[in-house]
Amino acid sequence: VPDRAGGRVHAVVLAGGSGQRFWPLSRELGPKQLLGIFGTESLVAQAIHRVLPVLDGGASDVTVVTNERLFDELRNHITAHDDAELHGVRYLVEPVGRNTAPAIALACATVALDDPDGVVAVLPSDHLLDDGPVWRDTLHAAVKAARAGYFCTVGIEPTRPETGYGYIRVGASLDGLVVGTAHPARVRAFAEKPDGPTAVGYLADGGYLWNAGIFVMRASAYLERLRADASTAPIAHAAFAIAAGVSADEARAAFSALPSVSIDSAVMVSCDCAAVVPATMGWSDVGSLLSLEGLAAPDKSGNVRVGRGVDIRTRNTVVHATERLVAPLGVEDLIIVDTADATLVTSRDAVQDVRLVVDALKALGAEEVVQPRTSLRPWGTWTTLLEAPGYKVKEIDVKPGARVSLQRHTRRSENWVVVSGEALVTRGDEALRLSPGESVYLATGVAHRVENAGSELLRIIEVQTGEYLGEDDIERIHDDWERHDAR
Amino acid sequence: VPDRAGGRVHAVVLAGGSGQRFWPLSRELGPKQLLGIFGTESLVAQAIHRVLPVLDGGASDVTVVTNERLFDELRNHITAHDDAELHGVRYLVEPVGRNTAPAIALACATVALDDPDGVVAVLPSDHLLDDGPVWRDTLHAAVKAARAGYFCTVGIEPTRPETGYGYIRVGASLDGLVVGTAHPARVRAFAEKPDGPTAVGYLADGGYLWNAGIFVMRASAYLERLRADASTAPIAHAAFAIAAGVSADEARAAFSALPSVSIDSAVMVSCDCAAVVPATMGWSDVGSLLSLEGLAAPDKSGNVRVGRGVDIRTRNTVVHATERLVAPLGVEDLIIVDTADATLVTSRDAVQDVRLVVDALKALGAEEVVQPRTSLRPWGTWTTLLEAPGYKVKEIDVKPGARVSLQRHTRRSENWVVVSGEALVTRGDEALRLSPGESVYLATGVAHRVENAGSELLRIIEVQTGEYLGEDDIERIHDDWERHDAR
Repeated sequence: VPDRAGGRVHAVVLAGGSGQRFWPLSRELGPKQLLGIFGTESLVAQAIHRVLPVLDGGASDVTVVTNERLFDELRNHITAHDDAELHGVRYLVEPVGRNTAPAIALACATVALDDPDGVVAVLPSDHLLDDGPVWRDTLHAAVKAARAGYFCTVGIEPTRPETGYGYIRVGASLDGLVVGTAHPARVRAFAEKPDGPTAVGYLADGGYLWNAGIFVMRASAYLERLRADASTAPIAHAAFAIAAGVSADEARAAFSALPSVSIDSAVMVSCDCAAVVPATMGWSDVGSLLSLEGLAAPDKSGNVRVGRGVDIRTRNTVVHATERLVAPLGVEDLIIVDTADATLVTSRDAVQDVRLVVDALKALGAEEVVQPRTSLRPWGTWTTLLEAPGYKVKEIDVKPGARVSLQRHTRRSENWVVVSGEALVTRGDEALRLSPGESVYLATGVAHRVENAGSELLRIIEVQTGEYLGEDDIERIHDDWERHDAR
Repeated sequence: VPDRAGGRVHAVVLAGGSGQRFWPLSRELGPKQLLGIFGTESLVAQAIHRVLPVLDGGASDVTVVTNERLFDELRNHITAHDDAELHGVRYLVEPVGRNTAPAIALACATVALDDPDGVVAVLPSDHLLDDGPVWRDTLHAAVKAARAGYFCTVGIEPTRPETGYGYIRVGASLDGLVVGTAHPARVRAFAEKPDGPTAVGYLADGGYLWNAGIFVMRASAYLERLRADASTAPIAHAAFAIAAGVSADEARAAFSALPSVSIDSAVMVSCDCAAVVPATMGWSDVGSLLSLEGLAAPDKSGNVRVGRGVDIRTRNTVVHATERLVAPLGVEDLIIVDTADATLVTSRDAVQDVRLVVDALKALGAEEVVQPRTSLRPWGTWTTLLEAPGYKVKEIDVKPGARVSLQRHTRRSENWVVVSGEALVTRGDEALRLSPGESVYLATGVAHRVENAGSELLRIIEVQTGEYLGEDDIERIHDDWERHDAR
């Protein structure tokens, strides 16, 4: 089996993006790669599952690269499903964000330490891709090209003159690298996002592909290539130093000094060994709220709806409203995105400018651009129902078999009311069993924990009272996940 | 004082309207006249306060005519403020809705029984009107005209060629009836809502006024006029019978048999004694969501905003969002109305069609067209925060000095957590004092009540659990307001 020669295949999933263009569905602490609306699991979990079949080492050969801020929530999402396989995933936290070239270098250095001939498949965490034989052939061919010394990308056959993507101009075929339906070729050129007429020309020409942001290569080859140029050599040096184990402060200092540069401009554009696997599978970069159109069939007026409501005298309008009732009347070409705490009403033409809204809200200090309403935890989720001076009401779900950390608060007291499932509550020295309708008072300073004592979901309404109700008022006495910060 | 000759002046406030055109701010059980956004009190309370200065008998000479469905909520709104005066208001419940002529007949028959020469001032409950000297002169002049035998209306000097109102063509002056700035005149004709060019002609002519829906006349004269015509005589007969005291079933039967007819077509158009007091005061029938434009000053792009959010690349758009954050982007000429449980996004051109949305939602059985999220009670308010199978979470506010009825439920248990203020809770034989953070469990079948034991607002989070959580699962053992139905 040629794929297995020369080191294992490792997946590097880039999951540090902030996804402002998907607000209010995405938030700073709940970015696009964590969205669960495009399928049964989040986009990042889909990305990992999609690559597992080509990994000899399974999930332990998956490295998720993210940042400090997103790490906890990201790990909670990846392990949220009853899918023990994904618990083996490894995480790399970028000391600071410096675009893709340094992030990939860090992953490659880590892989190379363990598996000097290892091949990395670098994958975005927030795209949609049809998983199937075409994808598997594509990936195998790309790995084969990587082993042959190429820096291999994946090019999607364009279906429209899209101006939002970069293009790859296909060069000479690499017939020796064919795998099934996948026919790798040399890259003749990378082209930036084109204007409209240029995009029409690309489509007519037939020799241009959409750049899907996937890169497959030997880890060592990538690092060597960085070292070969004075402008990118520091990236490789920093990556090696961090992979070898320096202090967090040294890592931060090393990374901070690096240029912010993409793999495309640092390596792909200038190297003479770029290859591409053309692929005809369904693909989307989920680049704007227009992607919501794909979630349901349009009605006869072209309206797409997810959620309750009615569309009256309305055309070509998308409504995504999972929490409440939304009714457009006498409008057209709108995208209406409604969430529990924020609503965006945008014209189709303006979807690329959602970041203007996010920036303006950030300037106002609006929490709605930062915090998702529901937060995933290793043991389940919590959702804020109401927040007001002096009190906060949350809905807490604990998965069967799981328990919250043993904790106490110095500035708030809590009341827990069980509304479904069976709870085992620890309060100081007491152990209390609570059924739906029963409640417990947790005074300030008293150690407490709740465990799901049944086989169904345990749901609790928590009413917090106190002068200070920040998530950081928590002391973890014992935690099944060894966390020390916010619950 | 001529006004006091010939019986007292009585106000009849028509408050049975359903106000679909204001959805989602208005609901079937929370119609436009109960909206508190146009000032510090609801429109109906404003209507009552506005007429009090001309009533010798004060609020006890105010009759609010409504229907069975709205009665409880309406009375709660009228008595919601610390305004003992309004507690004296009387209520008349129409057995069934039959438009204004029968409703006014019922009020006139009731007034005439008590005060045979009484004059009634019939007022809408859901308009905005500048309260001041012009209004008082207008009302005094109208009463004077009524005593002189006229059926007197109020006509607003038009300020634009409005096509949404009926018009009154002014006839000969009635110089003997002048009061201050108010100069009554005969009505030459009533004109239906005109088309655009006709409205422009009316405005240019100068002899046309907007019909404000206000009618002042002797109660007995109105009833006599109804009796004088075979088609309207049954209205007077039914009104007399009901006022004299028949059973509820007989009243319903008598009213059901009546034609559904307005006072305009039953009496005003055909009578030869219609008068009008022209008035130049500010007035609005608050007829559509466009009235929200008056609530704040527009920004430089013509956007009007109530509530949190940002308007990006947006023009001539109204946002009314009191609960959550709403952000329009790249849109124009929209009205966006956001409430806790429903959002309407309409073009300006379509505001008159909001009833199409309401009808469509009603056909789907959507509770959001019926129930307001917050419900007023004599003792305060409650707001539903969350409703799900098996449990419901409410925020309950109890006014200082007030208490909820002593009650019990047969199918649900409740937990109360005090989040602000001081509570005195009765539970069976116990009396418990609770401060913020403290809670109490109320088992199914146990009699309970809560009283505000402090001088601040008492706020409680109530978590209900049970298989059935309808508002009708309540047995009132004692109630300060002698209510027997929903709390």
